[in-house]
Formats: sequence, structure tokens, C-alpha cells
Amino acid sequence: MKYPISRWWGWGDADEEYSLKDRPHLRPFLQSKLGLPRLVESPPPALNDISLPSPGLGSEVKAELVSLLSAARVSLTQEDRLRHALGRSYRDLLALRLNRVPHAPDAVVFPQNEDEVAALMNLAAGQRLGLVPVGGATSVVGGVEPVRPEGFTGVISLDLTLMNKVLDINAEALTATVEAGILGRDLEVQLNAQELSLGHFPESFHFSTLGGWIAAASAGQNSTLYGRMADLVLGLRLVSPAGVIDTDVFPAHAQGPDLKRLLIGSEGVLGVITQATLRLHPQPQAAEFRAFLFRDFASAAKAAQGVMRAGLTPAVIRVSDGPETDMALALLREPRGWMARATRSQVMAFLSARGYRSGARSLMILGLEGNHRLVKAQKKEALGLIRRDGGFNLGRQAGSAWAEGRFDQPYLRDRLMNMGLLVDTLETVTLWPEVLNLHQFVTEACGEAMAGLGSPGLVLAHLSHLYPQGSSLYFILICPRSPGREMEQWRIIKTKATEAIISHQGALSHHHGVGLDHALWLSRCLGPARLELLKKLKMALDAPNIMNPGKLFYD
Amino acid sequence: MKYPISRWWGWGDADEEYSLKDRPHLRPFLQSKLGLPRLVESPPPALNDISLPSPGLGSEVKAELVSLLSAARVSLTQEDRLRHALGRSYRDLLALRLNRVPHAPDAVVFPQNEDEVAALMNLAAGQRLGLVPVGGATSVVGGVEPVRPEGFTGVISLDLTLMNKVLDINAEALTATVEAGILGRDLEVQLNAQELSLGHFPESFHFSTLGGWIAAASAGQNSTLYGRMADLVLGLRLVSPAGVIDTDVFPAHAQGPDLKRLLIGSEGVLGVITQATLRLHPQPQAAEFRAFLFRDFASAAKAAQGVMRAGLTPAVIRVSDGPETDMALALLREPRGWMARATRSQVMAFLSARGYRSGARSLMILGLEGNHRLVKAQKKEALGLIRRDGGFNLGRQAGSAWAEGRFDQPYLRDRLMNMGLLVDTLETVTLWPEVLNLHQFVTEACGEAMAGLGSPGLVLAHLSHLYPQGSSLYFILICPRSPGREMEQWRIIKTKATEAIISHQGALSHHHGVGLDHALWLSRCLGPARLELLKKLKMALDAPNIMNPGKLFYD
Repeated sequence: MKYPISRWWGWGDADEEYSLKDRPHLRPFLQSKLGLPRLVESPPPALNDISLPSPGLGSEVKAELVSLLSAARVSLTQEDRLRHALGRSYRDLLALRLNRVPHAPDAVVFPQNEDEVAALMNLAAGQRLGLVPVGGATSVVGGVEPVRPEGFTGVISLDLTLMNKVLDINAEALTATVEAGILGRDLEVQLNAQELSLGHFPESFHFSTLGGWIAAASAGQNSTLYGRMADLVLGLRLVSPAGVIDTDVFPAHAQGPDLKRLLIGSEGVLGVITQATLRLHPQPQAAEFRAFLFRDFASAAKAAQGVMRAGLTPAVIRVSDGPETDMALALLREPRGWMARATRSQVMAFLSARGYRSGARSLMILGLEGNHRLVKAQKKEALGLIRRDGGFNLGRQAGSAWAEGRFDQPYLRDRLMNMGLLVDTLETVTLWPEVLNLHQFVTEACGEAMAGLGSPGLVLAHLSHLYPQGSSLYFILICPRSPGREMEQWRIIKTKATEAIISHQGALSHHHGVGLDHALWLSRCLGPARLELLKKLKMALDAPNIMNPGKLFYD
Repeated sequence: MKYPISRWWGWGDADEEYSLKDRPHLRPFLQSKLGLPRLVESPPPALNDISLPSPGLGSEVKAELVSLLSAARVSLTQEDRLRHALGRSYRDLLALRLNRVPHAPDAVVFPQNEDEVAALMNLAAGQRLGLVPVGGATSVVGGVEPVRPEGFTGVISLDLTLMNKVLDINAEALTATVEAGILGRDLEVQLNAQELSLGHFPESFHFSTLGGWIAAASAGQNSTLYGRMADLVLGLRLVSPAGVIDTDVFPAHAQGPDLKRLLIGSEGVLGVITQATLRLHPQPQAAEFRAFLFRDFASAAKAAQGVMRAGLTPAVIRVSDGPETDMALALLREPRGWMARATRSQVMAFLSARGYRSGARSLMILGLEGNHRLVKAQKKEALGLIRRDGGFNLGRQAGSAWAEGRFDQPYLRDRLMNMGLLVDTLETVTLWPEVLNLHQFVTEACGEAMAGLGSPGLVLAHLSHLYPQGSSLYFILICPRSPGREMEQWRIIKTKATEAIISHQGALSHHHGVGLDHALWLSRCLGPARLELLKKLKMALDAPNIMNPGKLFYD
């Protein structure tokens, strides 16, 4: 198998790297902020060093799998099992570095069609095997971890990446019907060839799959304009142990409850999403990114809220808090030539003098795209609103710089993990009146948690998905790893952060999902009545209880 | 009880009427199109003439109802029972005129809070009584008809209009939390007082309730911009026999399946929607309506599709087919003064000469609203696209005339029913490649059905809710009623029309719902797997099977 993510211990292509060569400010920034005299080099692990729990399938089951799929599509190799053992969260990458992989599938199978998926379910139900649907395995909440609950004879990872065909593109209806195992980038390339686009760009875009997006109810960087997966899915097919659920593909309807919305966000526990019909749009005529600087996070957030209230429809609107803005500036490439460097210094000095001070100043990114005339009108309107709220226009170049690096964060995380650091992310969403409170509570809770463990660190945050009613909040935590108790350190911080989020009117997740990492809290967030309803729904579609054990629900 | 609809046999306020005084062209138009030498006057029925099935509640149950609610909020009067016996479809109004009311509730109760609703469910479960949640009783699909299936001891209409408080308006979050029994107009007035709006304007706006909108998954005339109820509901509460389901109110989330989307469109069969938190928007700065004329329906539809593809966001975009355009012109008020009359005649003659011919020409209404600058930019862009596709700009006055009469159709229906006519409406939705086909199939099927019964008639149609992917289609059928077999006539036409819709890729409903009238077809549209899932959901929330018997599902 050739894997989309060729780097098994981290992100992306093995030959891609987040270069720090022309970013001289990052190390000093981190050392100063983290109070570290130096950053310890911590090289990535070696594949041969990783030990996995032994596979436990009987030879009969193996033979049945082979007879269902063919030997070429049933794997028990160390690498295949390892690559389906974990997602791509900090916890996952840390487990690899610590050689403490908690679970591995007993086998990895690669079905090519729905009949094979259904046959695998049938076998699994008979043999009491768990089935874990896997796309790009980029989950950051443990969504694909092959947990084996008591009473199960094994767990099989169901890799869907061979089901990756674009079945139909209907340029007149602006729809595409696509198999769920397709990678985001492959789908977008095929749509772009017909001057169409889905417009769904999560950070994992190159390596995650359509089915994963739907299962996790994901959002992308342009979802403010084009909608989340929940909005982009016109209809879908799910193979469940109870049979195939095939929803309608009407633009909207009033023929009873919308069953597809039950399946979006179902995280593999109800069945396998095998294909979907998606809303497309013509590729935008115009696109423009701009960056702005505000004196503080509160005024930047207020301006962003104003843009949404005014009915504008930016593709991207993001607001970084003070610490994240400082980090973004520390990550800037050094301009070439002394003139450019001097100019930048002068600009920064000018801004500081005008009250845009380090620690407080707040960066906004605004991306507009679509029809030429509408982009122009929206730009005029947005610039007016932003100026009114104290935003300083840093121009298009700064905006484009953000856009160019929009998929780079996971590469940077690998780089920082190689420096001995913990780098975790959290996200949530709340209504506008709670946004600043929630930001403060979570920032403090995380700061205290890190410091309380003797590893004080940085909490960076931004608003990334904005609505007229509220906004998502995305946090990045950076601190030195605690040698010898790295996993405990992560767990304590994660717990305190999550408690802070849900006790201050934040959702358990805005777009990462529940998976394994948040399952513990879901019952508290839903309460008994909704949990009971979800469990009955699970029983309705997965009576043998074989689908993605341990995810979403916590028993 | 004072009823929102004071005219029990028809629509609206008893002193409101669709005046034909200054509309001299309508009668001749109808007589000529329907081939009738004259239109028979058919006066509305008298309240005292209506006989209802006798109420069958035992005195013990009556006493229990009174002890739960108080005598003032338990009614067995003829008028209360009659007003909860039917909705406001043609079939309903015909049943009244024929004095053939098929069902009436054994009692009407008016709960004031959720505890009372829950207590009523408890009583109903114990006594095997059906409970029918009723808001404004404006359903046009039999959604509130108190059907009593075998084995039930009675059916009670649960009138929710006393639960009509606006509990909270949060101007910063742009949300309002509102009890479900509030009338649309009362809600909008209270929001407007704070310069906010929900922007949900179904034709029934003045007389229908929030809870009814949610239960029926309704759409309004401005839903193309502001979204349908499914989009406008941020969160809701449902009292079910299994307990209260209270969903989150996040702008969006990824914490598992979106349960609120199960409850939207649940048509009372899962429980009673008692309150909802709604997305609002600031009242628009600008609003402008325009009318355009095209040479034929196909080119008007193409232009409208182009507007949606371009990413424009009109509040209203409607396209009438040839017959509806002719009817709209026949309904125009006669201008005052011979000059104005002469001018209009000249304009019509000019348009005919230019190829905008009676029978084929097609009227488009475009309504833009929101931010000043964006409305202006959208107008420029839309006018360009419309001109390109052959649209002739009839100007703002013609557009405003449509907007002024936007809630008048049900009054006109009463007027036409008083002329001895059948006036039924149908609606559906499909993807763009099917829109013209579906329009033609349904038009022909309805035309043939009416003619086959010896009452050839008119089929008018328009596109009213447009999406980049497709459009709703709304049909109005007008023909002479068949004396002596009016109900059979309706049923045959309705059946043929519905069969035509669902066999040509149309949804069973875009915004009226399933109710009683479409329940027969829902199983065919959903197929066994989805139907089974819906039934299990029903069992999960309404195990005693008491909620709104006979609706949605057909057993």
C-alpha cells in the first residue's frame, strides 16, 4: 500500500518540511516565552523500534477475510497495522515517540465496494469483531483507534481509500457523487478540471477523505462561505449492519425528519459512509486575502462580529489573540535584503508607537472570494467596518502569506515536537456574548494546568469559523514535554482544558469531533435523554454493536 | 377562545377580503380559460349547519383533563372542536362546505407550560388517547387532523397557542428563545421592535405558529436568503412521552449527530416542540423588488438558475410559467384614469410585438435585501445576468406590487371557491436538470386528470425557492368543482399529481410537509430501510404511540 501520508510518525510527505532556515526569530521567541535556556533535540522514532500488540485473529477468520476480499486486500503487516493504530493528534504522535501504541488492528482490510463492506459487517457480527472505518487516519480525537472492548474477539480496520472514485459530476446541477474514500485533494483536482469546486479545505485537506469529513461533521477553512460538511452533503449512502441507508438528494425537502443529518457526525458508530452527493459551486472569479492588525483581541473580535452581522460572506475570517499574533510574527520569514528588513522594522516600530503593542495586538485575516463585483462590494464594506473598529490594513501581501501557509501547521507541529515540545490543539464554539469569556477561561485553565505540572507554556488562540451568532475558538498549547510522564502531562492538561470549555458554554467540539478523546464528556454534554436517544439510534442501525467500538459514546 | 383566523371556513380575518372590484379581468379570464359560460356562486357554509362526530370521552377522563389544566382550558364546544378538526387545505375547506368533516377532537386542551404538556402525555398514554399538537391549524396536508386509529379511546387536540411568550431576545448573539405557540406575526413584531428579524414569511405568516413551522420543516418567501426553518432553528425543546429533549444552541458543532434535525420536520409524531432558539438578523438596511418578463418559462428559469449559480443571494426569486403569468396579469388592478390604462395597453402591445406573448411569457420577481452596498452590487450583477438571458425589466413598481400582495393568495382561494371552483396547490423540489421536465410532467398529469373528470382546468406553476442545485416547483390547480363528487374529484387529481411528482424525481414535499395527505406515499419515497429507521425513532421517543396518530407514517 502506498499511503497518502508517507511520514508515518508525523504529517504529510516525507520530503516536505516546515523549514526554519529563513525564520530566525522562532527559536529565540520560544526560548524566551517558555523560559528555556535551550530547546532539546528530540528526534522522531524509527519504524523498527515500534512494538505493537500482537494480532489475535484465528486462522479461520483470516481465511474468511481473504475469501471475501482476496489476499492482496487483507493485511497483517507491521506497517499497515501501525498506520491504522492511531490518528494524527499530539497524543497519537506522542504514543509513537514513546513506543506506547495502545491498540493496533488485528488486520487491515481494503474493501472495494459496498457489497464487500456489507459482507465484512456480516462476518464481524458473527465473529464478534469490531470494525473501524478509516479514511486518511488524520483524526485528532482518536476517532480511528482500534479499541477492543471486552467480549470482542478482535478489531479490524476497514480502510476505505480504495473506494475513491468520482462517480458523477453534474455541472448543471452543481453536484458530484463521490465514493467516500477519496482524498480531499484528489476530489478537488477532479472538480477543478471542470471549473467547479467543493470548497472544503480543512487543515488535513491533502490527506483526509470525504468519508472522514462527513463522519466527523468537519468544517474547512472556507466554511464560513461555503458551509460545513453538514451543509455540503446533499445526500449520502451508509452501509450499516441493518442495511443500506440511502438518503434523498433534494436541495431541501419537507418529507419528514432529515435522516442524513443523523449520519453526518456519526463517527463510524452507525455504519460506513460509502458515498455522498455534494453541493458544488463554480470556481470563484476572484479571490483576495488581506491582513489587519488591531490593538487587542477584543476589538478585533468585535470587528469580525460586525462583519458577520452586516451580512457579509467572507470565505475566511480569522482573528488571532495576542499570543498567537506574536507567534505569527515570530514565524515570519526574514525579508531578503537589508532594505526590506529595515522597512519591516520601521513598520513594526510605527505600529508599536500607535498602540499596536506586542502581547496585545491582534491579527485578522480576511479572505473574500466569488463573483468579481460582489467581492469588490464586500471588500469596500468590510474595510469600512474594520477601520471603524480600529483595524490597521496590513495589505494583500500579508494576507496572501497566510493563505500560502494555510496547510502548514501540522508540519510545524512535527518540527516543534522534534524540539522536545508538547503541541496540542483544542477547539470549541460558543455564542458571541460568551466568546471573550470562554477565551479567557480556557487560556487561564490551560496556562495553569501547564504551569502546575512544572512546564509553563504558551496558549495561542484564534477565532476561525465565524457565524452571525457566534464563533469557533481554536487553541494551540505549547510547552516543554515532561520527561518520563509525557502522557500523564497531556492527559491532565487535556482534561482541564476540556472541563474549562464545557463548563463555560463551549461545545465539546466545533469540527474535530468526539472520537475517543471526548467520549468521556459526551454524556455530560448531552444529558441522559439525548444520550438514550443516540443509543437507541445506534441499536437501530448497529444492533450487533460492532461499529467503531468505544467512539462517541462512553460506557 | 379568540382565534387568530377569525373566518372559520376560510382564510384570515373575517373583515379582510380579496377584492375583485378593481380587477375586472379576472372573471372573463377564468370563464374563457375554463370554458364556462358563467361562474356559479357557491356561498360559504354556515357554522350551525356543520355536524361533527360526537365527542366520546368518558366523564372520568374529562374530569382528569380539568384537574390537570382547569376547566377554562379544556373545551368541548362545537366551535373549538370544529376549529381543530381540519387545517386549511382545499380538501379541508371543501369538507366544511360539504358538511363532511371526517374527524373532530373529543376535546381541545390549551396547556400553558411544558409540565402540563408532559402531564397530558402521561394521561393520554394511560388512557390510550391520541394527542394532536396544533398551532395555527393552517396545515395544508392534513397535519392536524384528529384521526382516531383503531384501539384508541379518543383523540385530543393540544392547542399550543397559549404558550406564546418570547422568553429572551439576545441582540448581541442575534438569537431569540421563543415558545412554540407564538404566531409568526406576533414574533416578528417583537423582534422588529429591537430592529431584528427572523425573516421567515410563509404565506400563512399571520396565522401559523413557530412550532408549526418547525414541525413541518417549513420554508418562507425569503428563505432563499435567510434559510428555511431547518436553518433558522439553533436549538429546540421537545416534550416527548420519553421525556424532554433539549438540544444545544451552538451556531454549529461536531459533537455527534445533530439531533435537532430529527425533530425539525417530525410533524408532531415524536412529541411536542415547546420552544426554540432562533437565528436572527438585523433588519435589512435596504430592500428592493423588481419584476421582469421573459419570452418563455425556460429562459426565465435559466436566468434564475444563472443568478443562483453566480453566488447571488436574493431574498426572493420567483419565476411564473406562462399560465401563471397570464393569471397574474388578469389579476392586475385596473389603473386609474384612461391615460394610465392606455399606457398599460401600449406596454402590453409593445411586449407582445417583441415576442413576449400571452400563454408563453414568463414573469420573474426578484427581491434583494440587506446591506445597502451589497444590495446595490447584487442588483447590478443580477440585472446583467437577467438581460443576457432575455429578461425585460418591468421595474420596481411591478415588483413592489407583488410584494404587497404576497400574503393574499389564500384570500383569493376563498373568493374562487365561492365561485364554485376547485383551487388546490401542490409543491415539490428537484435538481436543475429535472426542473423543466418535472414542470411539464406534472402540468400534463394535472391537466389530464382534471379533463378526464369532465372538468378541464388551469394549471399554474412557479419556481419559488431557488438553490444553486435546484428549485422548488409550486402548482396551483383551478377547475370547476364536480357537483356531487367534489371529494372524489379532488382525490383523483391529488393522486395523479402526486404520482407524477414522485415518479419524476420530485420530492413528496418541499415545504408543506407529509401530514395525512402524503403519508400514503412516504414509505414509497423512503424505502424500507429509512422507514424502519424512522419507526424505530418514533418508538424511541413515543413508545406508547400516542403522538399525532396517522401522520407521516402510513400503516
